[in-house]
Amino acid sequence: MNFSSKLLEDAVNEFSKLPGVGQKTALRLVLHLLNKEQEEVDHFGNSVIRLRKEIKHCGVCHNISDHNICDICTANKRDKDVICVVEDTRDVMAVENTGQYFGVYHVLGGLISPMDGVGPSDLFIDSLVQRVATTPVKEVILALSATMEGDTTLFYLYKRLKDFQIPITTIAKGIAFGGELEYADEITLGRSIVTRVPYHNSLIK
Amino acid sequence: MNFSSKLLEDAVNEFSKLPGVGQKTALRLVLHLLNKEQEEVDHFGNSVIRLRKEIKHCGVCHNISDHNICDICTANKRDKDVICVVEDTRDVMAVENTGQYFGVYHVLGGLISPMDGVGPSDLFIDSLVQRVATTPVKEVILALSATMEGDTTLFYLYKRLKDFQIPITTIAKGIAFGGELEYADEITLGRSIVTRVPYHNSLIK
Repeated sequence: MNFSSKLLEDAVNEFSKLPGVGQKTALRLVLHLLNKEQEEVDHFGNSVIRLRKEIKHCGVCHNISDHNICDICTANKRDKDVICVVEDTRDVMAVENTGQYFGVYHVLGGLISPMDGVGPSDLFIDSLVQRVATTPVKEVILALSATMEGDTTLFYLYKRLKDFQIPITTIAKGIAFGGELEYADEITLGRSIVTRVPYHNSLIK
Repeated sequence: MNFSSKLLEDAVNEFSKLPGVGQKTALRLVLHLLNKEQEEVDHFGNSVIRLRKEIKHCGVCHNISDHNICDICTANKRDKDVICVVEDTRDVMAVENTGQYFGVYHVLGGLISPMDGVGPSDLFIDSLVQRVATTPVKEVILALSATMEGDTTLFYLYKRLKDFQIPITTIAKGIAFGGELEYADEITLGRSIVTRVPYHNSLIK
């Protein structure tokens, strides 16, 4: 691209480093911001600088937080003895949005992925084992993505936790609610037939 | 969305104000930046703050520039007597990228659009007329989008400029090079038949 300004080029290059943002989109976003008031642009730029500078991670569950211990871990009404293990903050938000979970979390910070050079020691797995060993835990729910990396991590976590003699569960896999059979992928449909459940168990109690 | 952090929520809200960026995309972009070094995030945030603060508009053609007069308007090898009139900076970049144009520009800053409340006085039209009146101009090329607003602006500019007795041209409209007839839209194909040109005129000289 032929930029008429070095400042413009610099800003566009910064934006085009973002995932899924090409040079054309970056230019559109930057020109959009250029039309805003200086105050608004300052707030935009500083919001992310401040976030990076001041953000903390919860000392218990490793979730992103403004405090040393996050709001979920300090909330009185959450069941501290049920731990839902997730990959990252986005998954905490996804589970929170369902409104169906009242326990606490443990954020791994990723999944085991030998292809990307991510091993168990790169994740918050030891601290999970520590939590289970030192605090009364009734159940560990493994809520990981149904991918190769998710399955690998699931298996590793199961091996590390099984000796504690507490129930270890994983979220149910199968066709989506409201999903039509003909549009379900073959593997999901096949597995959901193999792992079929008695009808009365499928009802929400 | 349930954010675990006020700082995170603030940054996501700022990003989701950008055009075409929803809350989920904003969260993805913010978490991406959160994984970067503080230095990189500072550079990202400051690049756009600095751009907004220090950017200038060329005093001649109104294009975005780092200086009071832009590089194109000051370049010796550009034909100062051919003016290409465009809507905004993006169009200057698009024409520059073709490598086929060697004159100078005039950036209107938008198109006449009564629906959006944009009238001729909101655009740099008077300064264009002034330029044509006070400097020697051999040709004015109107390179505006082939939309309702583009056509309206085209007609208005023609009315304002026609008395100066200089050639006023518009960019050619028709089916795209490499375009197949069956995929061309009806209006474009219809108009390109009506405005057909002698074969020898269609060759690039």
